[in-house]
Amino acid sequence: MKSDIVISQSADLAPITDIAAAAGIQPHELVPQGQYKAKLSHQLLKRASDAPQGKLVLVTAITPTPLGEGKTVTTIGLSQGLKAIGQKVMACIRQPSMGPVFGVKGGAAGGGYSQVAPMEEMNLHLTGDIHAVTAAHNLAAAAIDARAYHEQRHGDQFESRTGLPRLGVTAEGIVWNRVVDMNDRALRRIRIGLNEPGRTVNGLERESGFDISAASELMAILALAKDLGDLRKRLGQVVLAYDDQDQPVTAEQIGVAGAMAAILRDAAQPTLMQSLEGVPTLVHAGPFANIAHGNSSVIADRIALGLADVVVTEGGFGSDMGFEKACNIKARAAGRGPDAAVVVATLRGLKANSGRYDLRPGQPLPDALFQEDSEALVDGFANLKWHIDNARRYGVPVVVALNRFPDDSDAELAWLEERVRESGASVALSEAFAKGGEGAKSLAEAVMAALSEPADFRHLYELDQPLEAKLLTLAEVAYGGDGIELSELAKADIERLTVLGYGNLPLCMAKTPLSISHDPALKGVPSGFTIPIRGLRLCAGAGFVYALTGNVMTMPGLPERPAYLSIDIDEDGNITGIDE
Amino acid sequence: MKSDIVISQSADLAPITDIAAAAGIQPHELVPQGQYKAKLSHQLLKRASDAPQGKLVLVTAITPTPLGEGKTVTTIGLSQGLKAIGQKVMACIRQPSMGPVFGVKGGAAGGGYSQVAPMEEMNLHLTGDIHAVTAAHNLAAAAIDARAYHEQRHGDQFESRTGLPRLGVTAEGIVWNRVVDMNDRALRRIRIGLNEPGRTVNGLERESGFDISAASELMAILALAKDLGDLRKRLGQVVLAYDDQDQPVTAEQIGVAGAMAAILRDAAQPTLMQSLEGVPTLVHAGPFANIAHGNSSVIADRIALGLADVVVTEGGFGSDMGFEKACNIKARAAGRGPDAAVVVATLRGLKANSGRYDLRPGQPLPDALFQEDSEALVDGFANLKWHIDNARRYGVPVVVALNRFPDDSDAELAWLEERVRESGASVALSEAFAKGGEGAKSLAEAVMAALSEPADFRHLYELDQPLEAKLLTLAEVAYGGDGIELSELAKADIERLTVLGYGNLPLCMAKTPLSISHDPALKGVPSGFTIPIRGLRLCAGAGFVYALTGNVMTMPGLPERPAYLSIDIDEDGNITGIDE
Repeated sequence: MKSDIVISQSADLAPITDIAAAAGIQPHELVPQGQYKAKLSHQLLKRASDAPQGKLVLVTAITPTPLGEGKTVTTIGLSQGLKAIGQKVMACIRQPSMGPVFGVKGGAAGGGYSQVAPMEEMNLHLTGDIHAVTAAHNLAAAAIDARAYHEQRHGDQFESRTGLPRLGVTAEGIVWNRVVDMNDRALRRIRIGLNEPGRTVNGLERESGFDISAASELMAILALAKDLGDLRKRLGQVVLAYDDQDQPVTAEQIGVAGAMAAILRDAAQPTLMQSLEGVPTLVHAGPFANIAHGNSSVIADRIALGLADVVVTEGGFGSDMGFEKACNIKARAAGRGPDAAVVVATLRGLKANSGRYDLRPGQPLPDALFQEDSEALVDGFANLKWHIDNARRYGVPVVVALNRFPDDSDAELAWLEERVRESGASVALSEAFAKGGEGAKSLAEAVMAALSEPADFRHLYELDQPLEAKLLTLAEVAYGGDGIELSELAKADIERLTVLGYGNLPLCMAKTPLSISHDPALKGVPSGFTIPIRGLRLCAGAGFVYALTGNVMTMPGLPERPAYLSIDIDEDGNITGIDE
Repeated sequence: MKSDIVISQSADLAPITDIAAAAGIQPHELVPQGQYKAKLSHQLLKRASDAPQGKLVLVTAITPTPLGEGKTVTTIGLSQGLKAIGQKVMACIRQPSMGPVFGVKGGAAGGGYSQVAPMEEMNLHLTGDIHAVTAAHNLAAAAIDARAYHEQRHGDQFESRTGLPRLGVTAEGIVWNRVVDMNDRALRRIRIGLNEPGRTVNGLERESGFDISAASELMAILALAKDLGDLRKRLGQVVLAYDDQDQPVTAEQIGVAGAMAAILRDAAQPTLMQSLEGVPTLVHAGPFANIAHGNSSVIADRIALGLADVVVTEGGFGSDMGFEKACNIKARAAGRGPDAAVVVATLRGLKANSGRYDLRPGQPLPDALFQEDSEALVDGFANLKWHIDNARRYGVPVVVALNRFPDDSDAELAWLEERVRESGASVALSEAFAKGGEGAKSLAEAVMAALSEPADFRHLYELDQPLEAKLLTLAEVAYGGDGIELSELAKADIERLTVLGYGNLPLCMAKTPLSISHDPALKGVPSGFTIPIRGLRLCAGAGFVYALTGNVMTMPGLPERPAYLSIDIDEDGNITGIDE
């Protein structure tokens, strides 16, 4: 089969104005960015919010494995399948982070005949939203470091010199990292503000670091804001530092929130693209699901739900990660949850989840994963079963999409379908990768059937529960563990955040995606574990407290053979080698 | 008078498709980015290169003062004046750097009734070119740090593990900084790759720093590349490190140049905008004139010269800076020099250049600058006279644009006009700020007269002269000094670069813009000075060697009362407070 980029570049795409018109978007609501991309205006958001609302399908997956379960392929493929059976459908997905495109991953626009196109534009700058997040984030960083510097330099004179209040910002009190959309391990831990001895011309020396832009709180805000006004308000609430009295110093207090909003204004508009089969697809925001909530934007969903009868979106990683956060964080910001869940699974992914194989990143995969192996499949099914039950916990009907590979065993697939039905979910094979929407028609039918069932969406915890109680609920109910173990630091964080009035925020667990538990070594369906909570961090603008459960990486590195080696332009300016 | 942003936002702009059509750009050569911006395709570049060529007018200025001489106002105003007298004209200017917009400067799109619009889009992301430069630059940085890390970790095993040659890249040999488009003094000098003792998971520890993106060699490459193929080739030539044998390690060698080109592909297309009076304006690249060559792009000039009869562009700072580099560096890359020069001066700027006043950044200006003061004006005129003579040195006719302020003395203006005529240049008053093109008609007439004179453009030195001889020519002829003083380091750099085969590159002097000499304290027309050369740096991709003459800042800081304090969005999403 052809590579993703070759399929994408040889596709016969419609002008984005045609895609928009077919989706019911009026010309004045569209800001075209070249022939195949367009920003959707804030006016459209307003109109769509007042329109009759479609149904929201949230795609999640089994616990991720190095094999790739094809969640985005299924999201796009399902939307193409829904179109093929006559539904008015839109897809909403996150923008890929550029760092991983040059690192290990290649592209992230789906694959095969279920892609968003043009894939190279989607995988690079798109319409600049991530760049805007990076710039707004780093403006706040420069601003708080400069404030600390000027306040310290001028001391009692600061207010009279500047007419600004002295906020008591110190270098030590700053909690805001910088960000870059690049896999750059050397920036994880750095010392900034180095000077010749006795000088301060380069600012105040302190230890700091860079995260990848997808991990920025501003990316989470972009994803969770209801509209531009809400975005502006949330930016003001971002806590950049704690002052010398240990009180939060916000972006609003240092007067930088307005400029951040100016930088992010256009980024608050989702980008309209199309799938290879012409499904209008909104690409917006891209917060990581291991440290942020891992779902594309509320604004995009709101627009799509006002235009289409069915909207397909996805949450990052397994249902313990992006799906949980979609239900407990995003659904609250949006004022609505999903109407149905799709859990993506593959035979090979389930076998990999059996725990019978020693899979290491960068190492060749054992052949056994690709052959019939009923014991590994039986063990691995437990993981799928857990994700089915988990999604049902939130009150929504569940459809399992079995993403079929050409050499999959028919007998194993049949066995698996039977088990899924016994578990109370419906199931369909998907061949969206190789066949596009045609290969996802039966999945689409199963999803439509699920959407006709009565749904009773619910969150897992109430906001007015204390932070510790919410942590306990997540550990015991969302992950099936035996409770939590709070470090002394975590206890102090809970106390402090509660006193500061942030105790009623939802919780965003920063944990490994590679296990339902906090420990990537625990495969399948772990039990008997206690979740260690190292500490809690405030994202007051995004509107959640995140809890650190392990060594969660906020800045990837480039591998020994990085993906950039194969990327180039040809003499006509075509981009080659992404995802080859 | 209204503020710049209010004037810009109340202007009645034409759709960019109309501006393009009037300029002779065909629909398939245009990639609209919203209603008022469009990228110009590589196909158009090809067509324009084969078309009859227009005349190129290069706007420069007296030595800059804190008062602002209005160079961009004059560039845009002149182009509007040329349109008003019936010429087919385009303007080519650099994209403003976002860092200063939030720092001290407000906007940089011209001002008053001579602006490029929409000014807030021009001053923020525009079409993302600077973001692309930042991303490509930082990919190269991450790549070279990662290469050193992996080569060191795996030693003799590196080649067999990766199939890549072991290049002998060490942390100490890396010469590539990172960049961010932000005024962030704390990033000037940093230590990266910090680890727990004995660990290297965060890469190799070393001292490094961030420059502002406008100072990136990639920005200079973007400005100097003739076309996309040339850009790709230059990216490959960028030297990221010196290996353990002190030989250069290029972006091509580590295989990252193709990915950098993919990131920069769209940025290589100039952005078409319009002035308030509908002059088609190409905005492209923005290299600093103190460390890079300080001129907008060769690609934009080539397109404009193939479409218009007269093209107005500008060089950064005074004629000793951007203008000199336009003539000795850019003209070589472009294969042509300017046909006429415009030197912008103001009464107040000349008085400030008299050296009679103690002007300090951030301090109030003395009233005397704004009152009649013939002695200061006489002394200050010497600076203008020097810049006139300097521009004539390159063989082009010179027009002085006296940028008039409402309270300027008629008697002083008349005296000054007389002195300029005596010096052999023509002269015209410009009221482009207050009156737009109407206020620049006489300037436009003077420029057309100058363009009808025979021009004999020449460079100041030959490329095959040794580096030291070129340095001497610049010091003595371009700046009027008494020679150069080479540090031991500079001598070694000259020797090394010559041996490596880079001795035939043009020289880019990194020097203060605030004096014709290397010393910002020497006002007016300094003489009797010797230019100290601290060292030389190679920009093999941009195609020049730059020489450090003093403490030239490559990363600004935010001031005590930064410009971002007044920037915000209103409830309709309009951006407010830029340049108010």
